[in-house]
Amino acid sequence: MDFPWNELTLAFSHTSMFPFFDIAHYLVSVMALKRQPGAAAMARKNPLSSWFTAMLHCFGGGILSCILLAEPPLRFLANNTNILLASSIWYITFFCPCDLVSQGYSFLPVQLLAAGMKEVTRTWKIVGGVTHANSYYKNGWIVMIAIGWARGAGGSIITNFEQLVKGGWKPEADEWLKMSYPGKVTLLGSVIFTFQQTKLLAISRHNLMFLYTMFLVATKLLGSLELRAQLLQPEVQDCSTASTLLQLPPLLCVPVHPSVDVHVYGVLQHPDNHDDYRDCYYAFCSF
Amino acid sequence: MDFPWNELTLAFSHTSMFPFFDIAHYLVSVMALKRQPGAAAMARKNPLSSWFTAMLHCFGGGILSCILLAEPPLRFLANNTNILLASSIWYITFFCPCDLVSQGYSFLPVQLLAAGMKEVTRTWKIVGGVTHANSYYKNGWIVMIAIGWARGAGGSIITNFEQLVKGGWKPEADEWLKMSYPGKVTLLGSVIFTFQQTKLLAISRHNLMFLYTMFLVATKLLGSLELRAQLLQPEVQDCSTASTLLQLPPLLCVPVHPSVDVHVYGVLQHPDNHDDYRDCYYAFCSF
Amino acid sequence: MDFPWNELTLAFSHTSMFPFFDIAHYLVSVMALKRQPGAAAMARKNPLSSWFTAMLHCFGGGILSCILLAEPPLRFLANNTNILLASSIWYITFFCPCDLVSQGYSFLPVQLLAAGMKEVTRTWKIVGGVTHANSYYKNGWIVMIAIGWARGAGGSIITNFEQLVKGGWKPEADEWLKMSYPGKVTLLGSVIFTFQQTKLLAISRHNLMFLYTMFLVATKLLGSLELRAQLLQPEVQDCSTASTLLQLPPLLCVPVHPSVDVHVYGVLQHPDNHDDYRDCYYAFCSF
Repeated sequence: MDFPWNELTLAFSHTSMFPFFDIAHYLVSVMALKRQPGAAAMARKNPLSSWFTAMLHCFGGGILSCILLAEPPLRFLANNTNILLASSIWYITFFCPCDLVSQGYSFLPVQLLAAGMKEVTRTWKIVGGVTHANSYYKNGWIVMIAIGWARGAGGSIITNFEQLVKGGWKPEADEWLKMSYPGKVTLLGSVIFTFQQTKLLAISRHNLMFLYTMFLVATKLLGSLELRAQLLQPEVQDCSTASTLLQLPPLLCVPVHPSVDVHVYGVLQHPDNHDDYRDCYYAFCSF
Repeated sequence: MDFPWNELTLAFSHTSMFPFFDIAHYLVSVMALKRQPGAAAMARKNPLSSWFTAMLHCFGGGILSCILLAEPPLRFLANNTNILLASSIWYITFFCPCDLVSQGYSFLPVQLLAAGMKEVTRTWKIVGGVTHANSYYKNGWIVMIAIGWARGAGGSIITNFEQLVKGGWKPEADEWLKMSYPGKVTLLGSVIFTFQQTKLLAISRHNLMFLYTMFLVATKLLGSLELRAQLLQPEVQDCSTASTLLQLPPLLCVPVHPSVDVHVYGVLQHPDNHDDYRDCYYAFCSF
Repeated sequence: MDFPWNELTLAFSHTSMFPFFDIAHYLVSVMALKRQPGAAAMARKNPLSSWFTAMLHCFGGGILSCILLAEPPLRFLANNTNILLASSIWYITFFCPCDLVSQGYSFLPVQLLAAGMKEVTRTWKIVGGVTHANSYYKNGWIVMIAIGWARGAGGSIITNFEQLVKGGWKPEADEWLKMSYPGKVTLLGSVIFTFQQTKLLAISRHNLMFLYTMFLVATKLLGSLELRAQLLQPEVQDCSTASTLLQLPPLLCVPVHPSVDVHVYGVLQHPDNHDDYRDCYYAFCSF
């Protein structure tokens, strides 16, 4: 029984992220951007700024890792294929007639599939970051953890910083570095893969990649579904109850489609944790 | 007829920017800094800060390009000659007895000459940036465009960022990356020279440099003169008319020298577009 | 008499900063952080953020110098021993039972010893920065001065920047780059050692290091004691007198222990000059 398992995980660890998983990652990132208040209007008024922000959402982790290792942050622009792919997805998401992409994305199975595939790219990014850092600093296991974390979850830091520069985000001292759930999970993964890289963990990398990816996808999907179930409970009658339940500031919950039986809310994305489960919520409850 | 033309453009493309064109660039940049409200008082109170800001205005594009390519941003300080030249111009601009430099600069032909020469350095910077990026990333044409643009017009991003750190600039989300006219023209030039570099444009580089420089200088000078003509029209009677005409916030227009016949205004420089034609305006109408 | 003097200064210049001087530097830096309002509560609520801030306080100068020379800012994390040492000091400072470390540190001789030893590390950092910059740019004496200054006193710029990102610091245009006393002294040292490096100053390096360190330590200790004496004068009766005397904003002086005879004040640390003499003050007058 061990042989086919090994074969399966080995084949899994050789899966190429390009193009389908990358597309899912870009789609989830750009949709998260589009749900920010004012993003759609901004894209029509100032397309260059919107495109630039979308690229930061898509490639933020890589850019942060480049900055930390003093590699050119522009390197991501040298990969013409991926840039064109991400730009196309940005274009059809924001400018598709009848908003077809958003409508398709609000269909629950599509969203779950995209969210799951995005989590797969996270594993690949962490492994890539840890391996890359290892080629610089042989014994710098703190550096390896930091780069793995930056690649996997650092995009939110870059986008927060962009928000700061654009004036759209007023930072609060006690929210800084308070990690979201994906941030914590990525840190855990980064630590695990660093231990594996430095031979402190006696498990082959492909097995670890498979197990960690399964864990990521499972918690992501379960978390999304659980959140949806919570919000569809009959006692969630108004915005304040929903915001209490989600531990979100009240202004982030707005009624979208009040019907007689079920109150449905759209949780506007909080810039601080766009990577969080909540970013999947809007569409879940607005069909 | 073709031969002397080719000879002329080839000789033009071999013109050295040092020292005269560089001086013009530093002069225009430092004068733009000096016109900012409070800059002159600041220079006396805290000369080091003023000098540092002046250096950012003079070398901002190069610094941004270094950051984007992960080259030492301090490299510009290693060019002792240029630093000393820019420092001297900063010194005589801010501390010359009787403010002689500012008075000389307010003489229209001097200003037009300096503005024209500054535009010439822009071409050289774009070409330098595109060539330099090409040596890093052979096929990275997006990188080449970005670096050419950063060298030619990126100074305003660096100075905006400095304003942000100093608290003197409250960014607004919808003004971010909204390019000024020079920004757009520089982007155009960067695209053209990238196409030339990658052999997609069948024109020799020296011809292209000559034509593009002529275009830059002509639009700059015509823009300056047209702006001046507009503001000297009889119906421009007060600050609010002038600000409407210039599409500037009202507080940026202050009456400088109201005479009986012609109302003259000094347009205080808007930190966001110090590179714009308007930065030439102050002196034009205040003689 | 010259021989033993030379031997002494040579031996002094070969002193290793690790571990005792490094410990003193980390202790002073972390204690300066702990005295910031809210820092202790923050450490319990969000330890990761507090640890990260402490590392910036301890290694800020090195990080700034890496950024300026386009070296990986993460390099400091590759030095596992120093990271662990600084982390331990952060841990025992913030989480020691009964706050033993802070209590021990408030004992005057301990504080003077730590402050003096920290000044010794400053000389080593300046010399290291100047030598390192010289290996990059042979004749770039401006770069050498800048890197020496960044290594020796640049930590405050990094921590200010962190405060800006965290929203805890509202910058004011006229406070930017207004150097604190240590900043000025470090600049002086950086200039001197650059002159020595470029053979413009005919003095051997070990002699210069000894003399400059003595100067640093003496001014630091005298400054601390003088400040303490001033504040214990009978005419310093309330916060406003103390703040006038210290040229600090009034809100930075709060009465800590009003007794009948002597009014004692704790000067809360100003984030802008945590490197200043005043950061030694709190404990001096609160025993």
